[in-house]
Amino acid sequence: MSHINPGYSLTLRLEIHNKPGMLGKITSAIGKLDGDIGAVDIVSAYSNRLIRDIKINIRDSAHGDQILDKLKTMDGVRLLNVSDQTFLLHQGGKIEIVCKTPLKTREDLSRVYTPGVARVCEAIVKNPEEVYRLTIKKNSVAIVSDGSAVLGLGNIGPAAALPVMEGKAMLFKEFGSINAFPFCLATQDTEEIIQAVRMISTGFGGINLEDISSPRCFEIEERLRETLDIPVFHDDQHGTAVVVLAALINALKIVQKPMNGIKVVINGAGAAGTACAKMLLSAGVRDIIGCDRQGIIYRGRTENMNRQKSWLAENTNSGRLTGGLFEALKDADLFLGLSGPGAMKAEWIKRMARDPIVFALANPVPEVMPEEAEPYVRIMATGRSDYSNQINNVLCFPGIFRGALDCRAREINEPMKMAAAHAIASIVQDGQLSSDYIIPSIFNKMVGEKVAQEVLNAAVSSGVSQRK
Amino acid sequence: MSHINPGYSLTLRLEIHNKPGMLGKITSAIGKLDGDIGAVDIVSAYSNRLIRDIKINIRDSAHGDQILDKLKTMDGVRLLNVSDQTFLLHQGGKIEIVCKTPLKTREDLSRVYTPGVARVCEAIVKNPEEVYRLTIKKNSVAIVSDGSAVLGLGNIGPAAALPVMEGKAMLFKEFGSINAFPFCLATQDTEEIIQAVRMISTGFGGINLEDISSPRCFEIEERLRETLDIPVFHDDQHGTAVVVLAALINALKIVQKPMNGIKVVINGAGAAGTACAKMLLSAGVRDIIGCDRQGIIYRGRTENMNRQKSWLAENTNSGRLTGGLFEALKDADLFLGLSGPGAMKAEWIKRMARDPIVFALANPVPEVMPEEAEPYVRIMATGRSDYSNQINNVLCFPGIFRGALDCRAREINEPMKMAAAHAIASIVQDGQLSSDYIIPSIFNKMVGEKVAQEVLNAAVSSGVSQRK
Repeated sequence: MSHINPGYSLTLRLEIHNKPGMLGKITSAIGKLDGDIGAVDIVSAYSNRLIRDIKINIRDSAHGDQILDKLKTMDGVRLLNVSDQTFLLHQGGKIEIVCKTPLKTREDLSRVYTPGVARVCEAIVKNPEEVYRLTIKKNSVAIVSDGSAVLGLGNIGPAAALPVMEGKAMLFKEFGSINAFPFCLATQDTEEIIQAVRMISTGFGGINLEDISSPRCFEIEERLRETLDIPVFHDDQHGTAVVVLAALINALKIVQKPMNGIKVVINGAGAAGTACAKMLLSAGVRDIIGCDRQGIIYRGRTENMNRQKSWLAENTNSGRLTGGLFEALKDADLFLGLSGPGAMKAEWIKRMARDPIVFALANPVPEVMPEEAEPYVRIMATGRSDYSNQINNVLCFPGIFRGALDCRAREINEPMKMAAAHAIASIVQDGQLSSDYIIPSIFNKMVGEKVAQEVLNAAVSSGVSQRK
Repeated sequence: MSHINPGYSLTLRLEIHNKPGMLGKITSAIGKLDGDIGAVDIVSAYSNRLIRDIKINIRDSAHGDQILDKLKTMDGVRLLNVSDQTFLLHQGGKIEIVCKTPLKTREDLSRVYTPGVARVCEAIVKNPEEVYRLTIKKNSVAIVSDGSAVLGLGNIGPAAALPVMEGKAMLFKEFGSINAFPFCLATQDTEEIIQAVRMISTGFGGINLEDISSPRCFEIEERLRETLDIPVFHDDQHGTAVVVLAALINALKIVQKPMNGIKVVINGAGAAGTACAKMLLSAGVRDIIGCDRQGIIYRGRTENMNRQKSWLAENTNSGRLTGGLFEALKDADLFLGLSGPGAMKAEWIKRMARDPIVFALANPVPEVMPEEAEPYVRIMATGRSDYSNQINNVLCFPGIFRGALDCRAREINEPMKMAAAHAIASIVQDGQLSSDYIIPSIFNKMVGEKVAQEVLNAAVSSGVSQRK
């Protein structure tokens, strides 16, 4: 059975016969059907009836219908209206563009627009570097998607991806104080995407690629990195790798195993899986086995291969292990799931080494549910907010871009990503560390600041900072 | 001598010997040099000296230097700092992107981002029209330029054009409550511009083309109008035509001439000139003579022609008049300047018909200065804010887009532009009308609302509204 979903709440407006005990009857009816009651408000009161708003969190629409059907049959209760909080929040979009200074007088106008603006343009003509000081470029990021691999929804196309990218823009602002604008491009062609991003890059200090399906995402990122002089970052790859490494650094402290002594099984050989393998190798892990739907990836495998899987075959699984995930898990210290719901059986964890660590990051439904894994696992993490140890990219991308923009980094390189992972891990101090707390909360304000600072330092010391 | 420029003001921080009469000496020294003194503030006071900020409006940097040099020579005065208000306002850009709702709790996050956002995406997949209700598309306009014809500055390129486009975004917000985002494209190639705009159009409800040089602007607009199902509007053409017609409607009331009885000379055959000719013809004007640098445009002229000039040759100047602007002006009722500074001699106005109307819109320096034209002209208008009758596009584009977005107009068509012109003209009531007041102030809040309403009505009655 799926969880109560905090992203799915309804506000029910009910007209209720005004006699003692009615509210109790209603709330217990909702409770019996597993509806999670939030606020209850009185909208208006009359001698014989009350109008109340009752907010309930539910699992899904079938669950909602079940509760509504029950309420409709109750004596003395009339359902006046149902509103869905999530849809209400999305109406007309979630972000807006505002003026930083007033525009109320002719004097204001003559400074922000003609004739005053002409001198500002001329200053940029004279010294092109001034575009960083005198325009939004300095603090703006383009969030670019083609809607081809959105959340767990797959290829839903650019228009339907827009709510996700607007949400991402909100995260950039809230956690990184960055002005990010969403671009859902009307194409899924690699060349057209590269071309469009090049064209719009003038006004941006960085490009965040998002939810572009593999393998196109690799080529798009690579080619844009070569072409543009601003950072290009594919969050699904590198953001995931950074937060996974951060969580692993802390998990290994608890189980007291060295990075270079563990065996890691990565299930899922898409963009995130490959990026995590690369990052873990740079962090010192030596024994990695990658699996896809067909099983273990090994040198010499010929079926269902692509450039990324060939890279994995060449650079991991030095023992040329073959078989399926079941075989791969033997004596593994970390299971890293970047695949799909239920891809791992809880009992298989028994095959792993002592103190097994499971990061089951398929979202919203993990490879194995924490309650099922519980008897076998030492440290469990997911991508969800309703279990402990949420491994979420929002821990890293706002801070990484903040640091990169602040020093005008030409790119986001390996040392910067590594610095970000260590910065995130360092927020959880040794005295606080426990199997339920290996990674800080996304709402911990220290995270973004620390990540930004360490990323900036790494940019400077690795020579990619362009700030004078 | 050029005017004091409200877009050019300096704040001088001075350390002044604290004895009576010092401030008077300083302000009169500045006044003698034609510096226009604004606010004077005390920053800090000591027994023997005062630190003061003095704000002055100046003409240009040479003028500023002259004043600074004078102050530097004065006894008891030390110049501590000079700051340029316009540059200060531009630091870090003039617009920002903000979240419309808070993002402070897990519950917020689960609604605006995963998992809640997935249901919103699915609603758009199910019904693509929902993108207008559930995303920013509904109220967003892309301001697109290639930096090829910016203000009077010419082809300064995309990066240097960014401050102008940010300023335009401010105008969209302030006067139309529209979220507009500036795109200065890293190309000046027609095909690449068309392609880039197509790619980014998913998230926008309209496209405003800006400062793209002629003749590329015509093809770009035309092709985008054919391709996209959202309005595409080249403000330099159509915005100018709308405000010119609005001003003319009212000017003709004063001189009591009918639209179909006047002779119009348009100097400048670029994007704006051609668009104005078309608009005036639709409004009923029958006698138009177009001129460019080479002189009158007539059917049969072969030198310096292009597609737009050929159109003018075919559709205006039915008498096949030849010669220069001087010849063209004979008995003209309206001179419409869309050319360059000083293109018209004040005495030539004497050749025009009784009660001559001069719209000298070259900016910032008009074809003829109002003070020079004054002895000859009946009604004078410019594009400048420091003379009466400012003909400025900001009177129309925010309201036109507001009306178009509100009814989801497929395009901005002739009836909508005509409605906008009449709406602007109607704000100046007959009792208020005078030769110094033919067009409302850009800060008159009624303008945008009236234009939006009339444009929406025209969209509905001309069948381009798509709102259900």
